[in-house]
Order: sequence, then structure tokens, then C-alpha cells
Amino acid sequence: MKKTLMQNVEAKTPLIHCITNYVTVNDCANMILAAKGSPIMADDIQEVEEITSICDALVINIGTLNERTIQSMIKAGKKANALNHPVILDPVGAGASTLRTETVKTLLKEVNFTIIRGNISEIKTVYLGCGTTKGVDADVNDLICKETLTENRRFVKDLAKQTGAIVVVTGTIDLVADENQVYAIYNGHSSMSRITGTGCQLTTLLSVYATANPAERLDACVMAVSMMGLAGEIGVEKMQKEHTGTNSLRTYIIDAISTMDYNTWKQGARYESI
Amino acid sequence: MKKTLMQNVEAKTPLIHCITNYVTVNDCANMILAAKGSPIMADDIQEVEEITSICDALVINIGTLNERTIQSMIKAGKKANALNHPVILDPVGAGASTLRTETVKTLLKEVNFTIIRGNISEIKTVYLGCGTTKGVDADVNDLICKETLTENRRFVKDLAKQTGAIVVVTGTIDLVADENQVYAIYNGHSSMSRITGTGCQLTTLLSVYATANPAERLDACVMAVSMMGLAGEIGVEKMQKEHTGTNSLRTYIIDAISTMDYNTWKQGARYESI
Amino acid sequence: MKKTLMQNVEAKTPLIHCITNYVTVNDCANMILAAKGSPIMADDIQEVEEITSICDALVINIGTLNERTIQSMIKAGKKANALNHPVILDPVGAGASTLRTETVKTLLKEVNFTIIRGNISEIKTVYLGCGTTKGVDADVNDLICKETLTENRRFVKDLAKQTGAIVVVTGTIDLVADENQVYAIYNGHSSMSRITGTGCQLTTLLSVYATANPAERLDACVMAVSMMGLAGEIGVEKMQKEHTGTNSLRTYIIDAISTMDYNTWKQGARYESI
Repeated sequence: MKKTLMQNVEAKTPLIHCITNYVTVNDCANMILAAKGSPIMADDIQEVEEITSICDALVINIGTLNERTIQSMIKAGKKANALNHPVILDPVGAGASTLRTETVKTLLKEVNFTIIRGNISEIKTVYLGCGTTKGVDADVNDLICKETLTENRRFVKDLAKQTGAIVVVTGTIDLVADENQVYAIYNGHSSMSRITGTGCQLTTLLSVYATANPAERLDACVMAVSMMGLAGEIGVEKMQKEHTGTNSLRTYIIDAISTMDYNTWKQGARYESI
Repeated sequence: MKKTLMQNVEAKTPLIHCITNYVTVNDCANMILAAKGSPIMADDIQEVEEITSICDALVINIGTLNERTIQSMIKAGKKANALNHPVILDPVGAGASTLRTETVKTLLKEVNFTIIRGNISEIKTVYLGCGTTKGVDADVNDLICKETLTENRRFVKDLAKQTGAIVVVTGTIDLVADENQVYAIYNGHSSMSRITGTGCQLTTLLSVYATANPAERLDACVMAVSMMGLAGEIGVEKMQKEHTGTNSLRTYIIDAISTMDYNTWKQGARYESI
Repeated sequence: MKKTLMQNVEAKTPLIHCITNYVTVNDCANMILAAKGSPIMADDIQEVEEITSICDALVINIGTLNERTIQSMIKAGKKANALNHPVILDPVGAGASTLRTETVKTLLKEVNFTIIRGNISEIKTVYLGCGTTKGVDADVNDLICKETLTENRRFVKDLAKQTGAIVVVTGTIDLVADENQVYAIYNGHSSMSRITGTGCQLTTLLSVYATANPAERLDACVMAVSMMGLAGEIGVEKMQKEHTGTNSLRTYIIDAISTMDYNTWKQGARYESI
């Protein structure tokens, strides 16, 4: 992965329109800023088309969806498609309720997505149109590990082909796939799941990198995913060394993204084409 | 209080459905995770029954209630009752507006609560059906201190009997009561009131401990209350030693919960049956 | 500026009703507490009049406005006016969508504001009734610098006269103006724009200081603006010294406000009447 992927972000400061949940929204805004993008959160149906028009990309995160905001998501998504802006979907909790599963189906029918990111249970729900998510965390039976890598490799590629989107599945091993290629990313640490919102934050980080690098989107996604994992590793090391705890870890991760340079990433990144 | 109370939490990872306010929601989610539970925030009326069904407990916090979410609270509460899940109420600002006071009355009529936690002004409003809360903080005339302990002891026991709930009142001295027994907890520090959300966070911590320990709920509540107070003491000590400030304190408290082991709690806990 | 401005805040603990956005709401509540005020967030139309009545001031921030909350803003604003409470407007993103620009116009018609705070693009939109804001950040063509100071001095004074409000414009140089006087404040650091919500937080800090000092509102605003800038300088110095990052900076700023005493402010404040 080339240094220019990171330089393009700095040069362009992508402006990201987020329709997202109220749990992790502050962390998402700060993650976008840390990554050298610029966030706007706006969800009223009267303004989402205009806001999307002045932005460079749209993130749709269904974490605390409701009847009002679902309509805004669809409207903004169509507008972003018309403008040829990247649109990123985070199907939080897909499979945990009919409303979430059906909303994801509707969104996939009405909007073309550039990237879809979720844990394995959410992405399987997107793939199958039904699911068994245990809340907002991945089902333990679905975890991506060495044994299931081949099977999961096939399914993410298939979903990428079906949707035309880059598919990003996060877990012990992360996968990034388009219809031709699949990458496995080995960065990250299990303690990242002890704070809320690392998934949502990664989704916004992906939006920043993919928007600034339209010609190399798959590479940009691999970089963003491994960067987030590496930030987690750096954060956990600091948490352990300074004897702090999980809320400090949350701060360290965004700190690490805000100070990450190309060499740090290059030395710490662990991924391969599979 | 036995070590098993804490071990049960670790063994069960209680999944907590929260219908809560947008001010402290991120801290609440991170507190649940720090305590080794798992949070889901969902408030749309179309999904709250389903979400509650896959969870182990429900927290209702009226901090930024609105017409839409009040309906969701009632619906989710009834469903949780039907499933015999613990339901925890945080009547934020009860007494500060007719809407809040009336909503609490409606909730108490429609839903059986397992735990009710608030400051003394909020809990008096719950008890009397009317109140004089000065905003979201306790009225200075209501503070629990040595002089008023006997009177407050009677009233919380009475409310516990009336509602069938464990009643938790937080202040300089905290009280935890069922209809038979009252505990006074002396942990905590006045600086905890200089950050938003320590009350809301305690409510979620109570939900985690009470859910994992159905046979010993009163003990589990005493442990959770003293643990939160102890986390505040640890946090304030660190804030003073490191010359930081109130927003660092907010981080230190969740950090302290995330690293608290039984011995630390045992040595720092200060409570008695009164 | 006199020490009494700060002492009045401590003596009165102003209670601030905020109708604000869900992105930075937690930081705003913690900023008010750090400054030794007390926050209440409430936005349901059924309770906003009552909540405003028990408070000392009202902050209206349109950061994530929607149809429902706009009505609440107007109702609360009128009530606050009737009670002669200070009302502070933060026109986040005015100019970025018709909804935002029109809402600001309606608010200015229906409600008398005591203070209006925004970046230069937002404030120009308030002034002209139309604008070209690039999202929620100021347009680069609008930046306040030495060259444009005279022109901007005229326009903020003019807006102050038109609206009867103290006008606060934040940027590289901050301006605080009533119809007679303009102050330029030189505190602050460019890194403050790499975290979300420093503007929203300043708005709430202004509400605390202006409410506690009704007889010296302009001075109180100058103090609050320079205090926020100074907190940013202190925070950035710490961030650089400790090699942390932007999310730590967010914590340091609120920490610095929570521990700021008069002498620290006095020594660090840089402002002049222009």
C-alpha cells in the first residue's frame, strides 16, 4: 500500500455526511477529524439531500434507527448515488430485530453502496436476508478464525459481487473483499470489544480513506482496517503499561489515529491477500 | 458480600437493553462493557419488544424522554415483565416537569420494576407522586445525611414495599432497600457530581449485577453501589495526584470499574445494614 | 476584567437549559459542570417551558435540529424571553442547508437572543440571511485575520445593533461585540478544530458566565472566550508534551476549565478592545 493513500486524505480533507446512532456519534465525529477528514451529522429529512450535496461521502449507520431517520437514510442515499458520492453502510445489529433486518433490505434495494462494514453476524444477515445476531455483537458461532477462513472468503467475495460494494467484515481476523480479491487483516486486539463504537469508528475511517482514494478503494480500505487495528494494539499496550482501563483505551485509539504516520502504519500493518 | 456476585457477572455477560437519554448514553454503554456486561441501545417502538426479548434485562432512563420514546418504554417494559426480565428505572429529573412526573406515574402503573434508582428528590417524587426537583440534581433540602438517616430509612423501605422494587437512593450517603432491609453505603466523593452521568452509569451497573445474581439481588445492588462509589474515590485520588480535572475523572471512574477485582472492592467497600 | 466575574459563577451555580445536538451534548454538559454551572438537557415540547422556568438561562444549538426540536426551541425561547432569562443561540451549520438558514431566521424573528455565537460563516449567514457555509466549519474565504479585522469589526457591531445580542465570532482571532464595543481575543490554538464540539462547548461556557454576571455581560463574554482559548492552549501544550493526540486534547480542555483560577486566566488571557 502506498504512502499516497494517506497523503490524499491530508490533501483532500473529505467532508463526510453521517446519519448515525446517538451512542457513538461523538466518537465517530472525533475519529473522522483524527483521520483528517471533516464530519457533518444531519438527519432531518428536509435537509439530508442538501447536506449530502455539499459533502464528499455519506455514512449510513443504523445503530439507533427509527421511523424518522430511516426515511432520511433512504433519501440521502439516493441523492448521494445520483451525485456519484461513495456511500458506506454500517448495518449495526442487523438480525437482532425485524426492523433492522428489513431496513437493511430496503436500503440495499434503494441505494447502491460503495462499502458495507459489519461484524460477521451482521454481514451474514445482509447476505442471507435473515440472521441470528445476539444484539450488536457477533454470534460466537460465526467467528472468523483460521478454520473458517476459506468458507468466509467465498461468502464475502460473493456478497461483494452481488452488491457491487467492498465488503468489510471485522472480527479476530478482518476481511476486506471486492468481487475479485480478498484481504485478511491480522491487526487488532480483543480488548477493543470492551469499548463501544470501535466498529462504528472504523466505518467512518473507511469513509475518509475510500473517499480520498477513488482509484484505489480496495487498497484504501485495507489500509484503514489495519490502521484501526494497529491503533487498538497501540492503545492496549499503553493501557497495560499505564495501568489504566477501558475508557482510557477509547481515548488512546483515537489519539493513535490522530498521530499515525505512514512509517508507523507500514511497520505495524499485518495483512495479506488470500 | 461474596466473590461469586462478581464471578457470576463474568460468567454470564448480561445483555442489557437500554432505552436511555442521549446525554450520557455513550458512558452508559461503556460502563456496561467495563462491568463485563453487553449493551444494546434501541428505542424505536417497532423493535423494542424484539430487542428486549433477546436481552437479559431492560433499563429505562427518562433523561431526555419524548413522546415517541415514552411509548417505547412502556411497550418494552411490559414485554420484559412478561419474560420475567429484571427492569430497572432511572427517573431522571422526576419532579422537574409535569411530563417527567406523569411519565414516572404511568411507568409505575404499567410496568413492574425490579430496581428504582435516583437521587433523593427524584425518589421522593416517585414516592409522593409530586416533587420539587431543582433540575436533574437533588434539592439541597433533601440531602441524606446522618441527621435524616432514620427518616429516609423508613421512606425507602416503604417505597420498596409499595413497588416491590429494590430502591436505590444516591447522595452523600447511598441507601439500598427492599421491604425488609436497608443498607447505607458510605463510598463515593462529592466531585462525582461535577461530571454528568454518574447516576445513569450506576443505574446500568446495577442492571448488570442484579441480572447476573437473581437469587441475591439486594446484595448485588449493595455491591454495585459501593463499587461505583469506590471507583469515584479511586478516580478523585488520581485526579488530585495527577493534577488533571473533571473530564479525566470521568475516564478514571469507568477505568476503575473495568479493572476492579474482588479484593480491591472488599478492601475499599464501606457499608452497613441499618 | 475583574475576579468577581468568576466568583459570581461559583456563588450562583447557574442552571442552564440546553436544547442541543446529540453529537456534542455530553461534552456540553460536562463543560457547564466544569465551569461550575449545572446543565439540564430537555427537548420535548410538552416540557420545555416548565424546564426553562426552573432554569436561569436557555441555550439553543441547532447542530442536529429536526422538525420536532425546532418547535421546542421556539416555544422554550419565547418562555425564556417572557421570564427575562438570557437566551444563547449557536447557529451550527447555518448556511449549509435551507432548513438551517430558515430556522435561524425564524428563531431571530420569534426570540430575542442575549448572545449569538458561531464561526464567521455562520454569523455571516445570520447577518445576511443567506450563506455558503462548507458544512459546520467556516469557509476559508471568511477567516478573520489581521487584514480583515476592520471589515469584520464593522459587521459584528452592526449585527449586535440589529439583534440586540452580544455577537461572538470564533476563529483564528475571536471577536466579541455589542453595539458599542468590540473586543478581539487572541487566545486559542488551531488544533482545537481537530476535535468536535469546541464551539458548542464555548457557547455553553458563555451561557454560564453571562448568566452569573447580568450587569457585566460583555466583560463576562470576553472572559469566557479567552478562557476557552487558554484552555485550548494549555491542552495543546500537554498533548505535545505527553505525545498523546486529539482525543486526549478534548479531555484536557474540559480539565483546564474545571481547574482554572483567576490568576491562571489573568496571566494567560490575550485580548484588547479594538
